[in-house]
Amino acid sequence: MINKQLLNPRSIVVVGGSDDIHKPGGKVLKNLLDGQFKGDLHVVNPKLDEVQGLKSYRDVNDLPEVDLAIMAIAAKFCPDTIDILTKKKNTRAFIILSAGFSEENEEGAKLEADIVEKVNAVDGALIGPNCIGLLNQNYNGVFTTPIPQLDPQGVDFISGSGATAVFIMEAGVPKGLKFNSVYSVGNSAQLGVEEVLKHLDETYEEGKSSKVKLLYIENIDKPQMLLKHASSLIRKGCKIAAVKSGGSEAGSRAASSHTGALASSDVAVDAIFRKAGIVRCHGREELATVASIFMHPELKGKNIAIITHAGGPAVMLTDALSNGGLEIPHIEGPKADALLEKLFPGSSVSNPIDFLATGTAEQLGDIIDACENDFDNIDGMAVIFGSPGLFPVYDVYDLLDEKMKQCKKPIYPILPSVVNVADEIKSFIAKGRINFPDEVLFGNALSKVYHRAKPVPENPAIPEVDNTKIRQIIDQADNGYLTPEKVQELLDAAGITRAGESVTSDRDATVTAAEKLGFPVVMKVVGPVHKSDVGGVVLNVKDADTVRKEFDRMMQIKDTTAILMQPMLTGTELFVGAKREDKFGHMVMAGLGGIFIEVLKDVNAAIAPIEHEEAIGMIQRLRGYGIIKGTRGQDPINETEFAKIITHMGALMEAAPEIFEMDLNPLLGSKEKVVAVDARVRIEK
Amino acid sequence: MINKQLLNPRSIVVVGGSDDIHKPGGKVLKNLLDGQFKGDLHVVNPKLDEVQGLKSYRDVNDLPEVDLAIMAIAAKFCPDTIDILTKKKNTRAFIILSAGFSEENEEGAKLEADIVEKVNAVDGALIGPNCIGLLNQNYNGVFTTPIPQLDPQGVDFISGSGATAVFIMEAGVPKGLKFNSVYSVGNSAQLGVEEVLKHLDETYEEGKSSKVKLLYIENIDKPQMLLKHASSLIRKGCKIAAVKSGGSEAGSRAASSHTGALASSDVAVDAIFRKAGIVRCHGREELATVASIFMHPELKGKNIAIITHAGGPAVMLTDALSNGGLEIPHIEGPKADALLEKLFPGSSVSNPIDFLATGTAEQLGDIIDACENDFDNIDGMAVIFGSPGLFPVYDVYDLLDEKMKQCKKPIYPILPSVVNVADEIKSFIAKGRINFPDEVLFGNALSKVYHRAKPVPENPAIPEVDNTKIRQIIDQADNGYLTPEKVQELLDAAGITRAGESVTSDRDATVTAAEKLGFPVVMKVVGPVHKSDVGGVVLNVKDADTVRKEFDRMMQIKDTTAILMQPMLTGTELFVGAKREDKFGHMVMAGLGGIFIEVLKDVNAAIAPIEHEEAIGMIQRLRGYGIIKGTRGQDPINETEFAKIITHMGALMEAAPEIFEMDLNPLLGSKEKVVAVDARVRIEK
Repeated sequence: MINKQLLNPRSIVVVGGSDDIHKPGGKVLKNLLDGQFKGDLHVVNPKLDEVQGLKSYRDVNDLPEVDLAIMAIAAKFCPDTIDILTKKKNTRAFIILSAGFSEENEEGAKLEADIVEKVNAVDGALIGPNCIGLLNQNYNGVFTTPIPQLDPQGVDFISGSGATAVFIMEAGVPKGLKFNSVYSVGNSAQLGVEEVLKHLDETYEEGKSSKVKLLYIENIDKPQMLLKHASSLIRKGCKIAAVKSGGSEAGSRAASSHTGALASSDVAVDAIFRKAGIVRCHGREELATVASIFMHPELKGKNIAIITHAGGPAVMLTDALSNGGLEIPHIEGPKADALLEKLFPGSSVSNPIDFLATGTAEQLGDIIDACENDFDNIDGMAVIFGSPGLFPVYDVYDLLDEKMKQCKKPIYPILPSVVNVADEIKSFIAKGRINFPDEVLFGNALSKVYHRAKPVPENPAIPEVDNTKIRQIIDQADNGYLTPEKVQELLDAAGITRAGESVTSDRDATVTAAEKLGFPVVMKVVGPVHKSDVGGVVLNVKDADTVRKEFDRMMQIKDTTAILMQPMLTGTELFVGAKREDKFGHMVMAGLGGIFIEVLKDVNAAIAPIEHEEAIGMIQRLRGYGIIKGTRGQDPINETEFAKIITHMGALMEAAPEIFEMDLNPLLGSKEKVVAVDARVRIEK
Repeated sequence: MINKQLLNPRSIVVVGGSDDIHKPGGKVLKNLLDGQFKGDLHVVNPKLDEVQGLKSYRDVNDLPEVDLAIMAIAAKFCPDTIDILTKKKNTRAFIILSAGFSEENEEGAKLEADIVEKVNAVDGALIGPNCIGLLNQNYNGVFTTPIPQLDPQGVDFISGSGATAVFIMEAGVPKGLKFNSVYSVGNSAQLGVEEVLKHLDETYEEGKSSKVKLLYIENIDKPQMLLKHASSLIRKGCKIAAVKSGGSEAGSRAASSHTGALASSDVAVDAIFRKAGIVRCHGREELATVASIFMHPELKGKNIAIITHAGGPAVMLTDALSNGGLEIPHIEGPKADALLEKLFPGSSVSNPIDFLATGTAEQLGDIIDACENDFDNIDGMAVIFGSPGLFPVYDVYDLLDEKMKQCKKPIYPILPSVVNVADEIKSFIAKGRINFPDEVLFGNALSKVYHRAKPVPENPAIPEVDNTKIRQIIDQADNGYLTPEKVQELLDAAGITRAGESVTSDRDATVTAAEKLGFPVVMKVVGPVHKSDVGGVVLNVKDADTVRKEFDRMMQIKDTTAILMQPMLTGTELFVGAKREDKFGHMVMAGLGGIFIEVLKDVNAAIAPIEHEEAIGMIQRLRGYGIIKGTRGQDPINETEFAKIITHMGALMEAAPEIFEMDLNPLLGSKEKVVAVDARVRIEK
């Protein structure tokens, strides 16, 4: 497990270090030297006495005690070396760069298991094998470049793929994205993405730890661990974005062939990310852009001022933000007029604020000040400023940097002229700033960040269900489908409203039964054959008084022995289902029924247990939500009751994890209630 | 209008040319000099006798004759100068860089109109005002940088915004995108995007003209001209991509404030682009990526081989392509086995073809050869090759360049290591190649390009309608809604099937009427009061024989004088509507009815007239298409009949442009037919 020897070693040995900086063993040593590692640095190389100016030990047995070993030797030599290091050299942390382990074949998998056992035996930490290493404020333990600019408030980046980690850094670094640490977990033999995230959560210190985490994941082995610590970090004020690749069917195949692991279901991934509050990205460029937005102050509302010296990009950004659900509100009034006075004729302040190709740094300052102080309907600013190449724009970017220091509202710099003013952009980035070169990629990412889900609370309010009764039904059940009677009992125990019926012959019992069924009800005489002909059927009975009155009347009808009641069932078809997903727990799905499921696949999912707010979110994100809200003069469907069924379904799954699949299909929803008309439950213990 | 003086001038004068290269007049002169313009180059500057080493005339009257004038003087001086140039100097082409015209105020608009009049009077060409100029193989007539690498097969780029043109070039040039010409049309006083496209169409020469056109448009003033020439170019083998900004409501405002013009309806823009076969993009990065794909050989099928030395990007690309409707087919068989033999242990050829971090240039060559020659189920290759920074990769990129010369299947280079191997990428681009740095942006763009619509044929097959009758109804109608009788007549004249009825008392007439109504029909006796009781109603009569038989029987029923027939109407609610869109002509919309329109907005649009194939496309792109195809054991809806109503609706709009709005709502669609049950027509002459 992660320890201080891994994070902040007093001494490091590179086993397999060499003078050849075109190979991992040579390059990682060079990176450590370039990074001026402050502790003792050793090398083991059986053929040399000196490597890159350092003393080299020909035999690992000759080493002094050492905290961390970075290993760049063939897989087959690793176990013995680790044996010596753990037993004789008090080494408690290992980074294995070498490949040739479980990713390659069965033999490699055995070597890997052997190594994990040896490291675990001394409570050691193991990163890799088959990775690029680890990089933090204390040492550059990676064999790759670029070595990003390190900043305590930079990104903590954990990657399940080494090459992808490099390429993600290459997407972010040129734009100014800074890093605090990079963990490449390789085969995750001992420490995977989840374990590193857990560590970052458990060691989080407000005001000291970085607030931005990025993940690149090909497999989620421990979704519940990921959920727990990602949501915990986010509740502490962190922001997390992640790429989970392999979502498409073909992509899953690609991920499998690469890592030898089965792909997780993509819907479950979406659900767990939403529950945690993680922003899901689908590529390196998007991940870098979202991370760059995370590095800015929080955008506290959806109103953006677009400040520009060129019309086109402002229009495209307006489209992107507006289509993404953000606002570019009109700016007007005396303060807007006063601002306009300071700009050249032909400028516009109505938003986008266009101060023309001839606009100056001073004018930009006036505009930013007005947006910060005068315009209450502005929550953040996007500043677009490029150059046709006529003159330098250092003054503008310096001003922008100054204003970014002063302003509380976030200011996003969109500097498109990556050719014409490359030097000015470089100087701006050197001040610690980040550039968004493309306004549309920025706008899409900002919308995504702004609309990200909130993490579930630490102790979510989950509805109570009758656990004793549920356990009794489940424990007695065999694998396969539950009988209809047991299904009814299970729904009752779970507090899921179902279409019921009652047969009563006592007035008070009939009223109680009607109240339990829920008004309106249908009352029918029991006994007479042609019930309608004798006045023995009453539809749409709406209250207890009417039940009493009708009971008295109906019981006097000839041959009548009792009253049968059923709820008046009308309403819109709805659907709620649940499915056990390997490792993820149970997923509950909800949507409109019929064609909405079958043709439009208009269903949302959440991982059980589910809070009320989460269930409401599932309902409101449906494409067909308009039907639930009420459309064409139709009554709405009771959202609270629909949500209640979803949360109770979630609670049932917690109580009865043996349920493999369960459908409430259809439910009938109306303004008053939502009732399960048919249900199926499949047990797989 | 565009003439040879504009495109290939023998002589150019820069009016307002100066030594100050930080201003447009100085910079455009520098660009002309740097570009080694081969003709005579003059300068007019009232204060100097020599400018940038050239003789400068203090008075435009002193100039010799000159083909093209590039003007960088204040707006108010332009008309007089143009007067002299057109009348005394035989100048027939003008590029006005200066601002201060219609984009600024009323006064400027008058100056602009005056200039257009003067230029038109001599059949001259005018680019601008308020633009960055024109750049082609003959001269660098722009005042901005970068000056892209010019290539006769590079992009012809027409932009409605000067600054945006610069920023788009800055997005494309670093990736290797090459240009043949750049037209910045500014205020489009005489020549707009449409006119330039028309010129490119009319002067197109197979084998000589470039095949790729890019457009950046803020307003479509002449949609029909755009449609005509864009589709014509595409039919000739060209590829066109365009950004039309201002699509969102807020974006339209931004566009208006920028250009002083009303925004076109965005749905109409989508419709006209689809009809023309233009790929619509929504940002600079996307436009540059699509253009880069256009510069590669045509992808002839949807099967892509992903060739990679790193797993992560391959998985993300697989996801992007697969979600975009392309295939990453399994590769297997003896030839695949033979290829695998040539790779290092642990490689995979099943697609993605992963030849590992240690993979060599030679292996890449073997893989590409196999994909080109051996694997019939592969139509194109995406090659992902970055670097962790250990050693140079010139050999790999040189090999890639060689293979791209040899192969017929397109090869798309995805080189993500823009930091680690920046020099190698630069050298690859210098060979004329293009890089796609982000695999997901590439994958999304490739899917978009592959699935782009085909342009309408030059002479589309439009159904015939009864023009005489239609004109008669329309000519007699007042503005407002047509009467129900006239609506029925209009539908009949347009050949749109409607729910009709007939009353007949002759056997043959009844059969004819039934055939006209369409089987099955309902037959009812006319005369008897309680028709059912006397056997006077027959449902679901399916053929002429039954009509004859039932006619004979029913006419003998007491009091019967005639037979009333109606079609048996059952089916799924559908919708077809039409609306006149300013400048675009009529837009016809089609979808499923009811909630599909009202809640899901599931409607597709096309510009009239509409071909059968186009109508089928409108139907098949519906999200609810599954219902039309038939779902849950239900019959499908007759697509041919649905399409027929759409094409006839389009033809009706051509015959009667006075129709402002028309709804067929609902139509009832079944396996046999689609029938208009209700219709509304609004005339606005």
